Amino acid sequence: MNEWKNIKPKKQTVNEIVKQMRSTAFNARKLAEATDIVEEMIKDDSCKRFLGLSGAMVPAGMRMCVVEMIRRRWIDIIVSTGANITHDIAQSYGEEYIQCDPNEVKDLELRKKGYDRIYDVASRIETMTTMEKYIQKILNNIPDGEYSTFDLLYEIGKRIDDSDSIIKCASINKVKIIVPALIDSILGIQIWMNSQSRYLKIDVTKDLDYVINLNFDLKKEGKKTGAFILGGGVPKNFILQSVLVPDKPHNYVVQVTVDTPQYGGLSGATLEEALSWGKIDEESKICTLYCDATIALPLIVSTLIERFE
Amino acid sequence: MNEWKNIKPKKQTVNEIVKQMRSTAFNARKLAEATDIVEEMIKDDSCKRFLGLSGAMVPAGMRMCVVEMIRRRWIDIIVSTGANITHDIAQSYGEEYIQCDPNEVKDLELRKKGYDRIYDVASRIETMTTMEKYIQKILNNIPDGEYSTFDLLYEIGKRIDDSDSIIKCASINKVKIIVPALIDSILGIQIWMNSQSRYLKIDVTKDLDYVINLNFDLKKEGKKTGAFILGGGVPKNFILQSVLVPDKPHNYVVQVTVDTPQYGGLSGATLEEALSWGKIDEESKICTLYCDATIALPLIVSTLIERFE
Amino acid sequence: MNEWKNIKPKKQTVNEIVKQMRSTAFNARKLAEATDIVEEMIKDDSCKRFLGLSGAMVPAGMRMCVVEMIRRRWIDIIVSTGANITHDIAQSYGEEYIQCDPNEVKDLELRKKGYDRIYDVASRIETMTTMEKYIQKILNNIPDGEYSTFDLLYEIGKRIDDSDSIIKCASINKVKIIVPALIDSILGIQIWMNSQSRYLKIDVTKDLDYVINLNFDLKKEGKKTGAFILGGGVPKNFILQSVLVPDKPHNYVVQVTVDTPQYGGLSGATLEEALSWGKIDEESKICTLYCDATIALPLIVSTLIERFE
Amino acid sequence: MNEWKNIKPKKQTVNEIVKQMRSTAFNARKLAEATDIVEEMIKDDSCKRFLGLSGAMVPAGMRMCVVEMIRRRWIDIIVSTGANITHDIAQSYGEEYIQCDPNEVKDLELRKKGYDRIYDVASRIETMTTMEKYIQKILNNIPDGEYSTFDLLYEIGKRIDDSDSIIKCASINKVKIIVPALIDSILGIQIWMNSQSRYLKIDVTKDLDYVINLNFDLKKEGKKTGAFILGGGVPKNFILQSVLVPDKPHNYVVQVTVDTPQYGGLSGATLEEALSWGKIDEESKICTLYCDATIALPLIVSTLIERFE
Repeated sequence: MNEWKNIKPKKQTVNEIVKQMRSTAFNARKLAEATDIVEEMIKDDSCKRFLGLSGAMVPAGMRMCVVEMIRRRWIDIIVSTGANITHDIAQSYGEEYIQCDPNEVKDLELRKKGYDRIYDVASRIETMTTMEKYIQKILNNIPDGEYSTFDLLYEIGKRIDDSDSIIKCASINKVKIIVPALIDSILGIQIWMNSQSRYLKIDVTKDLDYVINLNFDLKKEGKKTGAFILGGGVPKNFILQSVLVPDKPHNYVVQVTVDTPQYGGLSGATLEEALSWGKIDEESKICTLYCDATIALPLIVSTLIERFE
Repeated sequence: MNEWKNIKPKKQTVNEIVKQMRSTAFNARKLAEATDIVEEMIKDDSCKRFLGLSGAMVPAGMRMCVVEMIRRRWIDIIVSTGANITHDIAQSYGEEYIQCDPNEVKDLELRKKGYDRIYDVASRIETMTTMEKYIQKILNNIPDGEYSTFDLLYEIGKRIDDSDSIIKCASINKVKIIVPALIDSILGIQIWMNSQSRYLKIDVTKDLDYVINLNFDLKKEGKKTGAFILGGGVPKNFILQSVLVPDKPHNYVVQVTVDTPQYGGLSGATLEEALSWGKIDEESKICTLYCDATIALPLIVSTLIERFE
Repeated sequence: MNEWKNIKPKKQTVNEIVKQMRSTAFNARKLAEATDIVEEMIKDDSCKRFLGLSGAMVPAGMRMCVVEMIRRRWIDIIVSTGANITHDIAQSYGEEYIQCDPNEVKDLELRKKGYDRIYDVASRIETMTTMEKYIQKILNNIPDGEYSTFDLLYEIGKRIDDSDSIIKCASINKVKIIVPALIDSILGIQIWMNSQSRYLKIDVTKDLDYVINLNFDLKKEGKKTGAFILGGGVPKNFILQSVLVPDKPHNYVVQVTVDTPQYGGLSGATLEEALSWGKIDEESKICTLYCDATIALPLIVSTLIERFE
Repeated sequence: MNEWKNIKPKKQTVNEIVKQMRSTAFNARKLAEATDIVEEMIKDDSCKRFLGLSGAMVPAGMRMCVVEMIRRRWIDIIVSTGANITHDIAQSYGEEYIQCDPNEVKDLELRKKGYDRIYDVASRIETMTTMEKYIQKILNNIPDGEYSTFDLLYEIGKRIDDSDSIIKCASINKVKIIVPALIDSILGIQIWMNSQSRYLKIDVTKDLDYVINLNFDLKKEGKKTGAFILGGGVPKNFILQSVLVPDKPHNYVVQVTVDTPQYGGLSGATLEEALSWGKIDEESKICTLYCDATIALPLIVSTLIERFE
C-alpha cells in the first residue's frame, strides 16, 4: 500500500500523472499499480511475458502500442483473437477506417454505402475483397504443411511488407502469436479457402504443444512467467490455462477489462479466483484495472517508454 | 410495439409473468420479446437454429435447460466454449459442485482444500484427475483420424453413459456441437495428451467447411437461420460470422448478455451493428436482453415448454 | 449454503422456479436468496421494513408491485426518487406511455411529436402540463405549513382519487414515503411553484428527525430493521445511513442493482463494505442481486404472494 | 468527425496523448472529445458552467482537480452529493485515508480497528467524531435563518481554514454549491443536530428558486449553459432538469460515467435521450465518456491547464 494523497493536476508528462495516481483510489490507483507491475515484469530477465489481445484493439488505433511493445522486446508471446490479426493485415495494405457516431448512424445506410461498423469506426466492405487478393497471394507462397497458428502467422508475417505491422514485427522479433480460435475470423475463412485446393492445415494441438513444453522448461529452469491481458475471452483463458500443465503459477498478471466478476463468466473473473486454480499463487503480483483498454494501453505504454528512457 | 401496461404480481406460471412483461419496459420487456422470437424461430420449420453457449453455464446448473432444448429439437447446432463441454463431461461421471460466497471465501484456503472456484461455486480439483481417467478411456476407443470438433464431440458423446449429458443428447439427436477454440479448455488438453501417442487430430477447418457449405445449401434452398446466443466471445462471433460466406443474413437473433456496446468489443456489440455487416438484414427479428443468463435461460425455456404443451 | 443442483425447466409457477434457482449459481441463486431474505424480513414481526426505489420503476410498469407490497403491509417506509412519485401521480390522472425502440427512435422527432423518452418508453409532453393543473389543485387544498417530505406526500396521497396509486395506498396504509431530494423532480418544481404565492415549505430536516428518532426507539425496544433496496443513489444511501444515529445495524438488507463495486461509488458498493460502517453487522442477513429490477421485482413479489397464500 | 489514425505511444505530455486519442476509437476518442468540449465551454464567455459531482471523488483524491477548476473560474455552480462535501470538510481538519485492498480486507476487522471503508480507501471512524466538534463550532457561528443549501455551504466555506478546500475556494470565488439531498449525508446529520437547539433551517426550495430564476435570466439575455457531469444520480438529474423551466436547452454537456443506458435509469441515460426532453437541443455539443472519473478527471484537468498556459 502507498500513502494516500490528493492528485495535483498540472502540465505534466503521462508518466508523472500515472505516478501521482498511485496514491489515490479506485481505477486511477489501479492504472498506476498495473503500470508498475508491467514495468517490473519487463525488467525481470527470467520472465517469459504473454500479451493477451481481445476486443477490437487494432481498429481502435492501438496497433502501434502493440508494435512498440514487440520492438522493445517487452513481450514474448501474444495470444489474440483472429479479428485483431485480420485488421493488422488489412492495415498493411493501406486500409483505413472512418469515425462515425453510433447514436447517429443508420446501419442499413452504412451497409448500402459499403461500410462495416465496429462501434464508432467503420471499415470499407472492399477491405475484405482486397484482403482476399492480398492474403491469398501470400498464402500461396507458404509451403504445404500442417501449421500451428503461430507458425502460420510467422510465415504470413514474414511476407508482409509493412514495418508497422504487428505480425511483421513479431516475425522479425521472434514473438509468437497464438490465435486459438483462428477459424473464428475473416483470416480463418481465407485460410480455409486456400486450403480447399492444396495441403495447408491448421493444427491447433501444436499451439498447445508449444505452450505446455515451454511451461515444462520454464518450471525446470526455475523461470518466471507474466501476463498482460487486455480484455477477456479466449486470450485470457488460454494464457491463464497455459500454466496448469505442469502446475507453475504465473508470477505477474495484469488484466485491463470492463467485465466484472458478478455474472460468473471467466472474462470478468478476478485474479483472486485464479489463485484457487493455481494459475497464480500467493506471491504473484496481480492487478485488475477496470478501464477501456483504448485509454489504458496508450497511457501504460507511453509511461513505460518514458521510464525506460 | 405492444400497448404499455403495469405488470400485475400474483401467483402465476412462468409463462404468465413473462407474457405480462411484454407490456412493460427495459429488460422485463426484452425478456418477453426474446422469448417470443425464440418461440417463433422454433416454430419456423424452414429454420436452422444455432445456440451459442458462453460463460460457465454448466457449472451454474443450466445443463438441463440445454438438454431440454436438444431433446425437443429446438436446436440444430451448438457453438460453445470448451469449458462448458468439459464440465458437462465431468457431471457425466458424477462430479458435483459446492456453493460458496465469493465475498467470504479465501482462495488460498480453497486451493489447499482442493477446490477450484468459479465465482460462487467450486469443483473439486480431483474432478480434473478423474477427468483424465474417464476421458482418456473414451478417447482411446475413438478411431484414428482428423476430426472436426463436432465430429470428435459426437464420438465422445456416443460413448458417454449419462442420458442427461449435453453431448450425449446431442449425439442421439444429431445436434452438432462446434467448439472453435477447443484447445482452450481442459478437454482440449486431454485431447492433446491423447494425441501424443497416436494419430488423433483436430482439424478446425472442417468445422468451417461444414458451416460454410451448410450456408450455401440454405441460401440455395431459400431456408432460414436463427440464433439464440447466451453470452458473447467466440460462440457469438462464430455464429454471426457463419452467414457471411455466402452472404445470407440470419433471420432471427436473440442475444442474452451483460456486455454493453459502449466499449467497442464484439461481445457487447448490438445486433444493429451486425446489420452493417450483413449478418442480419432489416427484416430479421432481433432482440438483445441484458440479464444474467442463469436467470433468463430457465425462464425462457420453462415458458416455451409451457407454451408448447 | 444449499446443495448444488441443476435446474429443471418445465411448466411451473414463479415460486417453483425461484425455489429451484436456490441450488444453482450466479444471479439465479442470488434471486432465490434475495427472495428468501425478503420473505424472512416480512415474517419478522419485530422488523421495520424499508423499501428503496431508484430508477424509473413506475414508468417501467412496476407500480402494482409496489402497491401490492404496501397493501400487504410488507413495507413501512419507502425512500424514493422524486421521479417515481411524479410518474405515480401522472398515472393517477390517466397518463400512459408508449413503447419505443431506443435503437430506432430519433429523439429530435420524438421531441417534435411531443414525447419525452425514458429509454424504451415515452410519455407525452402534455403529461407535464396536465400535471400542473392536477397537482396545483391538490396542493392548494393542503394547509399552509412546513412539511417533511413524507407528510407532504401523505397530504397529496390522501387527495388522490386512484386506488392503485402508490402514494394513495401509502396514505391509507400509513406507509411513510420519504424523498430526500424532492426538489430534484417535476413534482418538486410544482411544489416550488405553489410555494411562490403562499406559505408551503419543505423542511427536509423533519425527515431526518423522523428516521433518527425512529431508530432511537427501535434500538431501545430491541426491534429490528430490514431494507429491500431497488437500485442505488440517494434512496440506498439514505436507508443505510438511517441506522447510524444511533448505531443500530440493519438486520436484513437485500439490494437489487446493476451497479458493481469496482468503480468505488456508493450505488455499487457491496453490503460487506457497509459492515465496516456499522450499517449492518456480522449477523445481518444480506444479499446483492445483480439484475434489472424490472425482471427481479415482479418475480420476487409474485413468489412471495404465492408463498403467503 | 476526425481522420482515423493509430496512436503513437512515446514520452509525451498528458495534453499530447489526449490530442492523439482524438483520432482513435471507443472511449479513448471520447476522452479527447470530452476534453475538447469542456475546453470550448470554458472559453465561451457567455456560458454559465455547471459541475456535477457524484461518487466518492473527494476520498478518491480528486479534491485538487475540483479546486483547480474553481480557482481558474472554469465553473460557476457545483451540484454535488453530500458525501463529497462531508469529506472535503474532513480533509480541511487534516483527516487522511489509508489505502486497502477490497479483495483482502475483512470488513469486520476494519470495523474493530475503527475504519470505514470506501472501496479501496478507508477513513478513521473518529473522522466523524472530530467532524462533530469541528463543524458544530462552525455552525454555531452562522446566524439563525432559513438557508438554501448553497448559502449554508457558503457560510460554512467562509469559516473553513484550509485554502485547498472545495467549499472554501468556492466561497472565495463565488461559486455556488448546491446539494439537493443534503440531509442524505453525515454533514446533513450534523446540520440536523445543530438545528435541534436553535433556528437553523435548510429550505431547498430556495435552491430551486435560484436555478430557475437564473435560467429565466440567461434565456432573456441569450446566454448559454454548459455542464460537466461526473457520475449520475441526483447531481446529473438536477443539472439537466435545471433548464426545463423555462425551456432553454444546455449548449454543452459532457458526462463521465460507467452507467450504461441499457437498464433504463437516469444515471445511465444517453444525452440523446435528453434531447427528447428539451434538456439539450440538436445544436448542443455533447459527449458521453465511459470511464472511471478518477482516471478521466485528472487527465482532462491536466490537459486543459496545459492548453490554457
